[in-house]
Amino acid sequence: MERVYNFAAGPAVLPLEVLTRIQRELLDCGGTGMSVMEMSHRSRKFEEIAAEAEKLLRELLGVPGNYRILFVHGGATMQFSMAPLNLMRRSRKADYVVTGEFAKKAAQEARKFGTVRIAASSEGRNFACIPPLPAFSRDADYVHITANNTIYGTRYASYPTTDAPLAADMSSCILSEVVDVSRFGLIYAGAQKNIGPSGLCLTIIREDLLGFAPASTPVLLDYRTYADNASLYNTPATFAIYAAKLVFEWLKAKGGVAVIERINQEKAKILYDFLDDSSLFKGTADREFRSLMNVTFVLPTEELTARFLSEAEAVGLVNLKGHRAVGGVRASIYNAMPAEGVAALVDFMKHFEIKNDR
Amino acid sequence: MERVYNFAAGPAVLPLEVLTRIQRELLDCGGTGMSVMEMSHRSRKFEEIAAEAEKLLRELLGVPGNYRILFVHGGATMQFSMAPLNLMRRSRKADYVVTGEFAKKAAQEARKFGTVRIAASSEGRNFACIPPLPAFSRDADYVHITANNTIYGTRYASYPTTDAPLAADMSSCILSEVVDVSRFGLIYAGAQKNIGPSGLCLTIIREDLLGFAPASTPVLLDYRTYADNASLYNTPATFAIYAAKLVFEWLKAKGGVAVIERINQEKAKILYDFLDDSSLFKGTADREFRSLMNVTFVLPTEELTARFLSEAEAVGLVNLKGHRAVGGVRASIYNAMPAEGVAALVDFMKHFEIKNDR
Repeated sequence: MERVYNFAAGPAVLPLEVLTRIQRELLDCGGTGMSVMEMSHRSRKFEEIAAEAEKLLRELLGVPGNYRILFVHGGATMQFSMAPLNLMRRSRKADYVVTGEFAKKAAQEARKFGTVRIAASSEGRNFACIPPLPAFSRDADYVHITANNTIYGTRYASYPTTDAPLAADMSSCILSEVVDVSRFGLIYAGAQKNIGPSGLCLTIIREDLLGFAPASTPVLLDYRTYADNASLYNTPATFAIYAAKLVFEWLKAKGGVAVIERINQEKAKILYDFLDDSSLFKGTADREFRSLMNVTFVLPTEELTARFLSEAEAVGLVNLKGHRAVGGVRASIYNAMPAEGVAALVDFMKHFEIKNDR
Repeated sequence: MERVYNFAAGPAVLPLEVLTRIQRELLDCGGTGMSVMEMSHRSRKFEEIAAEAEKLLRELLGVPGNYRILFVHGGATMQFSMAPLNLMRRSRKADYVVTGEFAKKAAQEARKFGTVRIAASSEGRNFACIPPLPAFSRDADYVHITANNTIYGTRYASYPTTDAPLAADMSSCILSEVVDVSRFGLIYAGAQKNIGPSGLCLTIIREDLLGFAPASTPVLLDYRTYADNASLYNTPATFAIYAAKLVFEWLKAKGGVAVIERINQEKAKILYDFLDDSSLFKGTADREFRSLMNVTFVLPTEELTARFLSEAEAVGLVNLKGHRAVGGVRASIYNAMPAEGVAALVDFMKHFEIKNDR
């Protein structure tokens, strides 16, 4: 068995140590004589797993005591509905910053529930940057941003200061760098990039924002349902929570988020430095806003792009194709992508450039 | 490593062959060099897995061509909201038959979206039976039933004939016995009993019922979102779909649903026959409505019940405690529970009875 270097944008690479542990425990988790998948979500053993996952996440992100951590169904897309349903609590107005496809989808979904103002957009620049941020609406119930743009390879260089609660989709950057949680009202992240298997969404919400969803809100779309029941109102995605716990343990053993941030910066620098010097490859994101997690670039022709992707795949550098909405190349280098994988990619790009420089 | 016999109501026992296969493929699924958890949901390999899962389910259940199979987020509880949101399309009225806690919860949730009439209830009999069914409302948009009641150990001996589309929660009995899908408008089942890991819900809907959700419906609560995008509008629970496919393959290799139904009847008969002859143990469900999947019974005192549960656990017969709402004992004997497990349980009960008969 030979493992590839998997640059997929999500579901994405997981730490080999975590996968090996899952494999080892698959028929007998912690001496219970059963797989974690077979375990009642109300068993003591599973409650321990879920509590430990929450505790580790709180520790890793430095989540303050007045914030709740929820394990929610359905990924970030479910949050596109849940954020407005729960946070549009006074004016029913919200400001959205549109920095990519998912930001657009979030804003579009929110229109179902109230008034959405696009406070700023970088669509005119094909989302190559985070746009300058204007003053936000005085009466907005919240301001929504997408912290890292998986498709376009951009991220906020710094987060805006807002009067209204700041809500952030951190699906593709959570746990990749130190964040001051207290600056946010709501943070959510689909698990399938930096956390674990898909079908689970981590949500961190300031306690005073709970309890405002209208009575007609579907029960599993009200954050309070999760907050009041330790995320066990109904059967959660138990296996995904277990895997997330193992990823959190792995991250803690690495030294935590500050350490992984340094590693991530080093990994990204290798790639971006090469792109900046290259005559063949060209980065697409403005330097100031370059993502640490998703590195996007192009080659001069579609023919060369196709050849690059196919030759890379042949040597075990896979899933480098850019998102279907933009084309080109994208290397997603989440926490679990080892530095060796990035080095192997850059090495391959160097050789490809020499072979194909004209 | 010694595997126990796990009688949990869900998440529940999975076939050992399936777990072993998952374990074998965990670092390298089908020669891809990656775990199925690391695979893009838009990769050819994963699309094959999802398509094969759907095809197998269609074959196993004999799902007619005018029905769609959807992989939905969030378990049956999400369906308690989705069924009314999507099916209340004319009168916004629905009839609910209340045969247990989950049926009650389904009816309660539906009240958020329209008028709910409780057509019949067995609550007065502590849910020991399926109540006689009256005429349903002439103008109901649908009739909702819970096919098998996990907590109380009852099931429909036969399904009602209705003018309005019949919607059924089959979470704890799907694939356990032959069902004529064409008699239903909607069938849904949380995966964690007879299908696979939790966090996934299988939904089967007649095509002509799609497309009626109000414009304000959260995008992932509209069945059409899943139907129009082959359940890939956003990232689905990929690992759970993969595991479900393996369970479907296992079931097909066993001979399919008709064969497993016979095995299930035999397994249940061993337990019920013993209960009927026992002087110590007493079944709680009316004979006519006894579930094939969840066998509920009581002992004369709480002290004996506690001793029974603890001694059973000591010999590897685990998770026999009745639901916290009712107490007593419950043996969930889903498809994946081998006949040997049921035999071991009955054998243990016989010895316990001899030891404790007064």
